[in-house]
Amino acid sequence: MERLTSLKNPKVLFWRSLADRKARKESGCFIVEGWKMVTEALASAFAIEAVLVREDMESEISPELTRYPVYLLPAAVFDAVCDTRTPQGIAAVLRFTRTEASGSRLIALDDVQDPGNVGTIIRTADAAGFTGVLLGSACADVFSPKVLRATMGSIFRMGISRPDDLAAELGRLRESGFSVLSSQLDGTPFYERTGVSDRFCLIIGNEGNGVSPAVSAQATHRLKLPMRGGAESLNAAIAAGIMMYDLTRDLD
Amino acid sequence: MERLTSLKNPKVLFWRSLADRKARKESGCFIVEGWKMVTEALASAFAIEAVLVREDMESEISPELTRYPVYLLPAAVFDAVCDTRTPQGIAAVLRFTRTEASGSRLIALDDVQDPGNVGTIIRTADAAGFTGVLLGSACADVFSPKVLRATMGSIFRMGISRPDDLAAELGRLRESGFSVLSSQLDGTPFYERTGVSDRFCLIIGNEGNGVSPAVSAQATHRLKLPMRGGAESLNAAIAAGIMMYDLTRDLD
Repeated sequence: MERLTSLKNPKVLFWRSLADRKARKESGCFIVEGWKMVTEALASAFAIEAVLVREDMESEISPELTRYPVYLLPAAVFDAVCDTRTPQGIAAVLRFTRTEASGSRLIALDDVQDPGNVGTIIRTADAAGFTGVLLGSACADVFSPKVLRATMGSIFRMGISRPDDLAAELGRLRESGFSVLSSQLDGTPFYERTGVSDRFCLIIGNEGNGVSPAVSAQATHRLKLPMRGGAESLNAAIAAGIMMYDLTRDLD
Repeated sequence: MERLTSLKNPKVLFWRSLADRKARKESGCFIVEGWKMVTEALASAFAIEAVLVREDMESEISPELTRYPVYLLPAAVFDAVCDTRTPQGIAAVLRFTRTEASGSRLIALDDVQDPGNVGTIIRTADAAGFTGVLLGSACADVFSPKVLRATMGSIFRMGISRPDDLAAELGRLRESGFSVLSSQLDGTPFYERTGVSDRFCLIIGNEGNGVSPAVSAQATHRLKLPMRGGAESLNAAIAAGIMMYDLTRDLD
């Protein structure tokens, strides 16, 4: 257990840099905050680089935590590393381990921009029994603090693929027998869909512009939820949730 | 058309006060911002007290708008009245007109705290074909700028009841033949529900604590969506969306 008291300590500087997407991408590292997220991280496929504990929480350090490099930080240093204003006094620095979106129920995020939507979709996918998420390159970064918080830990239970070319990857899934379902406002009625395979991938597009043409071109089905009343569209995470639960409705 | 240039003009002071929930409640007035919301407001049941136009948008004032009291405001005054930082230069001051949550598909918000959740649930309810919303007294204020924005105009298409005692109101609905469906984590499987009437009211509870005991006691059904994977719960607006669309699945 090491005590770091300076904001200019190289390790502290590195952790602080992880607030930035570019630094996360270059290092492969990211930070999760709070007991729930740290506890789930320990049981996940990601490597634990460091456990950060605020000084006043030293008595909470369990024997399990001491199996990892633990750093004690004064409140000012701890708060500078963390994103939230009232953190619980514990955080962990993780290293992304390459996983794959495997299994038969996948969700692809083409260009979902809002971090809350991305995180909520991943949380809902986990709850609905989906097993993997494919992330387009223009999506909000799933390892940003806001997305991680909104996943409520589900990020640790989903296989994650970040293909260079999402459209090409969806084409491969389709050729291997997957139904590729694109959620789009010019689609056919969702509840009248036919011929959906047991293996499928649901695509959610950008909040304003929907699924991009190149990605939509790979779809086997283009589907739209009914819009009654006078609403023109649904929030992206809501549409994703309704479709995912309906697609797994008869799973139990 | 009147031009108001002072931040201390009594009208301007009143409009600015509407950022506060208490002032909205006492006056019965609230503000909507942007062309979409203003256009939908004009066609709604609410009374238009004033249309506010930023000076540089004067040329956009249509003949229809001039049927209402229009005020031209310099940017500094307009921005002080509005909640958003980059408003489109138009807003309207509305007076709440008492409506009722009528029809056969209702949603009740017991104590939903997050303004984004409240607004998104109302937007989704409209899209799913629900006709009315019952608001518990501890809910986020539906006439706050954040909720109004999240409704995307659906607030203008839903009957709204604000009963003093939500539990008692739900009891009356039940006695009149409605199924009263409470979404709660200790409920029975949602997809195995039986005996739900064509007329129903779905209850969504607080994000952390769920539906309150007094309200749950009025339910004819207590239901829970399946939680697969390792997720413990869903976001309140997501759960509401999934349930609302499933309840109206066969409507078309």
